[in-house]
Amino acid sequence: MEGKNLLRYLFFLSAIVLLLFFTLLNLPSPPSKAELLDCTTSSLWCTPKNRIQSKNPITKPNSHTADVPHHPLDPLTLTEFNRVKKIIQSHELFKNSVYALHSVVLEEPEKKAALNWKKGDPLPARKASVIARARRVSHVLTVDLSTGEVSQHETNQYSGYPTMTVEDMNSVIWAPLASADFNRTVIERGVDLIDLSCLPISTGWFGKAEESRRLIKVQCYSMKDTANFYMRPIEGLTVIVDLDTKEVLKITDNGKNIPIPKANNTDYRSSVQNSYQRLVNPISIEQPNGPSFTVEDDHLVKWANWEFHLKPDARAGAIISRVMFRDPSSGEMRSVMYQGHTSELFVPYMDPSDAWYFKTYMDAGEYGFGLQAMPLDPLNDCPRNAYYMDGVFAAADGTPYIRSNMICVFESYAGDIGWRHSESPITGMEIREARPKVTLVVRMAASVANYDYIVDWEFQTDGLVRIKVGLSGILMVKGTPYVNMNQVNEQENLHGTLLSENVIGVIHDHYITFYLDMDVDGSDNSFVNVHLQREHTSPGESPRMSYLKAVRKVAKTEKDAKIKLKLYDPSEFHVVNPSKKTRVGNPVGYKLVPGGTAANLLDLNDPPQKRGAFTNNQIWVTPYNKSEKWAGGLFVYQSHGDDTLKVWSQRDEPVENKDIVLWYTLGFHHIPCQEDFPIMPTVTSSFDLKPVNFFESNPILGIPPNVEKDLPICKAAAAASA
Amino acid sequence: MEGKNLLRYLFFLSAIVLLLFFTLLNLPSPPSKAELLDCTTSSLWCTPKNRIQSKNPITKPNSHTADVPHHPLDPLTLTEFNRVKKIIQSHELFKNSVYALHSVVLEEPEKKAALNWKKGDPLPARKASVIARARRVSHVLTVDLSTGEVSQHETNQYSGYPTMTVEDMNSVIWAPLASADFNRTVIERGVDLIDLSCLPISTGWFGKAEESRRLIKVQCYSMKDTANFYMRPIEGLTVIVDLDTKEVLKITDNGKNIPIPKANNTDYRSSVQNSYQRLVNPISIEQPNGPSFTVEDDHLVKWANWEFHLKPDARAGAIISRVMFRDPSSGEMRSVMYQGHTSELFVPYMDPSDAWYFKTYMDAGEYGFGLQAMPLDPLNDCPRNAYYMDGVFAAADGTPYIRSNMICVFESYAGDIGWRHSESPITGMEIREARPKVTLVVRMAASVANYDYIVDWEFQTDGLVRIKVGLSGILMVKGTPYVNMNQVNEQENLHGTLLSENVIGVIHDHYITFYLDMDVDGSDNSFVNVHLQREHTSPGESPRMSYLKAVRKVAKTEKDAKIKLKLYDPSEFHVVNPSKKTRVGNPVGYKLVPGGTAANLLDLNDPPQKRGAFTNNQIWVTPYNKSEKWAGGLFVYQSHGDDTLKVWSQRDEPVENKDIVLWYTLGFHHIPCQEDFPIMPTVTSSFDLKPVNFFESNPILGIPPNVEKDLPICKAAAAASA
Repeated sequence: MEGKNLLRYLFFLSAIVLLLFFTLLNLPSPPSKAELLDCTTSSLWCTPKNRIQSKNPITKPNSHTADVPHHPLDPLTLTEFNRVKKIIQSHELFKNSVYALHSVVLEEPEKKAALNWKKGDPLPARKASVIARARRVSHVLTVDLSTGEVSQHETNQYSGYPTMTVEDMNSVIWAPLASADFNRTVIERGVDLIDLSCLPISTGWFGKAEESRRLIKVQCYSMKDTANFYMRPIEGLTVIVDLDTKEVLKITDNGKNIPIPKANNTDYRSSVQNSYQRLVNPISIEQPNGPSFTVEDDHLVKWANWEFHLKPDARAGAIISRVMFRDPSSGEMRSVMYQGHTSELFVPYMDPSDAWYFKTYMDAGEYGFGLQAMPLDPLNDCPRNAYYMDGVFAAADGTPYIRSNMICVFESYAGDIGWRHSESPITGMEIREARPKVTLVVRMAASVANYDYIVDWEFQTDGLVRIKVGLSGILMVKGTPYVNMNQVNEQENLHGTLLSENVIGVIHDHYITFYLDMDVDGSDNSFVNVHLQREHTSPGESPRMSYLKAVRKVAKTEKDAKIKLKLYDPSEFHVVNPSKKTRVGNPVGYKLVPGGTAANLLDLNDPPQKRGAFTNNQIWVTPYNKSEKWAGGLFVYQSHGDDTLKVWSQRDEPVENKDIVLWYTLGFHHIPCQEDFPIMPTVTSSFDLKPVNFFESNPILGIPPNVEKDLPICKAAAAASA
Repeated sequence: MEGKNLLRYLFFLSAIVLLLFFTLLNLPSPPSKAELLDCTTSSLWCTPKNRIQSKNPITKPNSHTADVPHHPLDPLTLTEFNRVKKIIQSHELFKNSVYALHSVVLEEPEKKAALNWKKGDPLPARKASVIARARRVSHVLTVDLSTGEVSQHETNQYSGYPTMTVEDMNSVIWAPLASADFNRTVIERGVDLIDLSCLPISTGWFGKAEESRRLIKVQCYSMKDTANFYMRPIEGLTVIVDLDTKEVLKITDNGKNIPIPKANNTDYRSSVQNSYQRLVNPISIEQPNGPSFTVEDDHLVKWANWEFHLKPDARAGAIISRVMFRDPSSGEMRSVMYQGHTSELFVPYMDPSDAWYFKTYMDAGEYGFGLQAMPLDPLNDCPRNAYYMDGVFAAADGTPYIRSNMICVFESYAGDIGWRHSESPITGMEIREARPKVTLVVRMAASVANYDYIVDWEFQTDGLVRIKVGLSGILMVKGTPYVNMNQVNEQENLHGTLLSENVIGVIHDHYITFYLDMDVDGSDNSFVNVHLQREHTSPGESPRMSYLKAVRKVAKTEKDAKIKLKLYDPSEFHVVNPSKKTRVGNPVGYKLVPGGTAANLLDLNDPPQKRGAFTNNQIWVTPYNKSEKWAGGLFVYQSHGDDTLKVWSQRDEPVENKDIVLWYTLGFHHIPCQEDFPIMPTVTSSFDLKPVNFFESNPILGIPPNVEKDLPICKAAAAASA
């Protein structure tokens, strides 16, 4: 027996040596950080595919070396990032250790200071807010850019870790290859290591075992014969890795019998299509006199009656601030919102099995919604008349890099009608009045691995703001032995839809929670639930038995403003300024018009739902608090849900006639269907912020109709003359 | 006392004589029917304001004298209308009496015949369906156009009257002027008779007293100093008139103390604005190579992979039939829907007082949604690249007239994204793939007195159909003595919002019910409720406690498919073809994606709700029945609710694997706000019909991205060169 065991031992040893040799030969080499992030050398990650050249006068490549801040809310400039890097380098916390900067952003001045600031005033002191990790400890620091002073903030009261750095994500996916076990498993599953593509999947938090260190789960795919490796999962293979040390802690393979789905028909790139299916002639939005908006000092957008500050953000994507509207009757600039942005996402998948239960993503706090916003593709992500804005972010060592064309701004006209009225023959007047509807769209699109989120802030000339989220990109799918539904027992739960042979699209939800610091004509506002309740008439009062009555109820404390939407007990949700009234005495206000109302149905005690508790209600209202911007908490990664909107609002503070923040969660249930394979047509939902007695009357009464002579003279495509 | 009474009597008598004299002098004269409807003399009602001339090659004025039917579903032609007129004239029912034709439309052939018909085949026998009234009796007739044969149908089983004729509406509003009492009242209220504008308001049905004859309530407004007389109600003044005899039956005035609101700032016409507020530069949708769609034989629209038959209809507005999609993988034309259209509207106002309780409009069946669809205004109601389709309808005497530019068809591009994906630095691939989203919109806009409904059928290249309803136009408002909310006791119910001095916008709902005869790959379909239900894991099964599971339940009978939407108990709603499966075995289907989900909350026993019982559920499914097209019944006017969708579906017939019709109701609650004064910015809701495992995969995978060389070369506006 001893000899036999020795032989076995030698056999396995030599197999492993061979395997390692093979691995070394075939190992894909990770790109260096410099390669990844150095945009001056035009790295792939920084440039859009169809970079518009000088032809479009409002968009030209910008090195940003000359950027200076002009507005209290302007993001850190390249120069400022470099200064932060130096200050941090020489700070005693980091001097003699390995460290990583997980977030470097402007520490915004106090709201009062920003509100009081006027163009021409000196800027409030420029500061950076830095989240750094060194020696397994997270630090939150404020760096004063003029004095170089660094102040530290308390961080250990809450669970969780900061947003991963791009370097975290990029390095951890190579970690499993250091494990021979892993490599052998992959090869046994029929995948060459050279074809391997792995994803860093946030682990969520499921109790004690996962609390002591930063963990991540790596799952892998075969990218052989397709760029769409997401459709070729090595199902059931999960590697737990320590995010700080990149140590492989555990490998599970529960999918040995599950084949890797075929690559056929999965690649979506135009370059690999055999032929185009040209369904429609070219179509374009044209503005003969150019766009109607300006972007002053890089960030201040002025369009129609609107004015707002716009900046890219590594976590939120886009942040819109100081949103104001020029009242057409008085000419006065009136405040609508101090700040609005995507606060957090929550994407729970509906499969409790080993390789899936933890997939409960919080894309903003875990991955950085802005970090994942790649350069937009001109003419396709945004129309021809778009203006582009770059993001400037910091790498883990503090070096700034440019994410070009991260946000686009454009005017949209879809042929819709702003308002109209015709008179019918009955009334004896020939009236045909209609006005075209033109809007201004601010767009960014985040690709959090497979999924793409398109976030639009769409401003209408009538004062309405529509916040839209479009879902596209690629499903997260599950491998299966099944190739046809006729093999599936009716009792079996696939947890999704069979999309193609061996591919299941797993059911999941998307929740996108928005932070909306409304300042309607000033900071002190109230939240009013305008309840439509059914009334019955008294006997003999009327031939009608019933009607709806609007009953206004002002929220006194946070509790009164926790709203679960009810179709059969409806309300309007107003944010009003109780001390400002219209001419006829209505409080001026804006209402939140819900949409994308899918509600979260997970058990409130389910660990992911504790972390995603900010989706327990669709609407919340909190008193303004500078530190409460991220609905899932500042440190979301592996958090236990102890720093969420739900926890904050348990204090039940007064919200009447206070500076309040409105929170709204857009929800989607997604049962995949075959049309989502191999890439999903965009699905969009939206909600509105709509003036309600904010104006004395229709603010676009006086806009002119279109007439032929104002429209452009166009000739056939450039191609024709080329 | 006797002498005093005599003096009083003489005084009143002379006052009345004076008043009558004054009335005669000032009476506005109603336009003659010929004036109103003769479009050959370019009557105001037939032509759009900015009639596009020959410049636009796809739109030219058409006398329609040469029209011939090409398709089994083509509407009656001018020639056919004239033939029907002659046949009816000489029919014994009408020969020696006054009669009115309330509806003359194509009697569509049996569905099977229409489905079997192929281009080149002879058309099925052309027939007209006629609803006529003579001697206070409603008749439903079928006129065979080739044989001249007329067959009569049973009509007296149900309550209610046919849709009013334009002549009904036009004549009844002058009827009150025959009453000296009315005229005196108007003058006492401070309105000159010459300034009077009156509206015919359907009475609804509120019991026995109103059952024996066709009744209408006339309410009036002052049009002095404004075209927007709707904002100047003579509040509380209601005249009940017999619609057949035009006899004034009763005059009520409960508004003596309510002033007529001022005209200031109410007129919305561009011609009366002091100055334009030009907020944005001209913007246009341009197609250098022209539109991508064709309209064959006047009614067959072909665009991208879509093909459908489109026709105007006096009652429904637009009817879309034989909707088919060319499967990009097989090239096969596949059926999606046999027919879809607006079936009925229900608009209850929420004020039980005397002048308001009966305002519970059913705009399609009472007024004719198509009859009220005025010519669209090119460049403003529809963009520059639109194609226009005329309607041909019959006047009450059977004479055909043309409603020009009643429907428009155009391609829309708003800068949106059809699908996209970017790869992030993590996965090491530079991918930026995005495809612009272009759609085809079919639009009509009905102005039912004050309100404007914009109905869009929007077709996407990915197989989705979005049905949108936009609300614009003018509120129905109520006069009030109040000029400021500070005069209003908190307990008092205004039934709406004080919009301006003396003007209340009354709370109301809008329900628009759509008829959707889905034929997914054939007529026999099933309705499947795909229920997302929360499941709990067993102890030890998973670190997750809960997840959502999709459970499919096929509706056996109509009862199973009566759906009240529930946010906390969600489902998807599929119409599938159970006998056709995809390659991997999913039944092919389309799903209804609800939107505009405001639910009707009136008491089910309230008389208006009995009539509007088709809004009791948001979704219904019925077996196809040629006679069940109008959710409120064929004869809606003053009906008792005995011929509604609710009544039909009580039979609870099987709907599994049958030819089924899907019904969906879009709902809006509308609490007016000052921004709606004096004309409302458009509010839009929509629902979708979306392929769900209808295709094997994403049907627009192969469409090409936009490239600069395909886009037009435009120069500044025509004005510049003029």
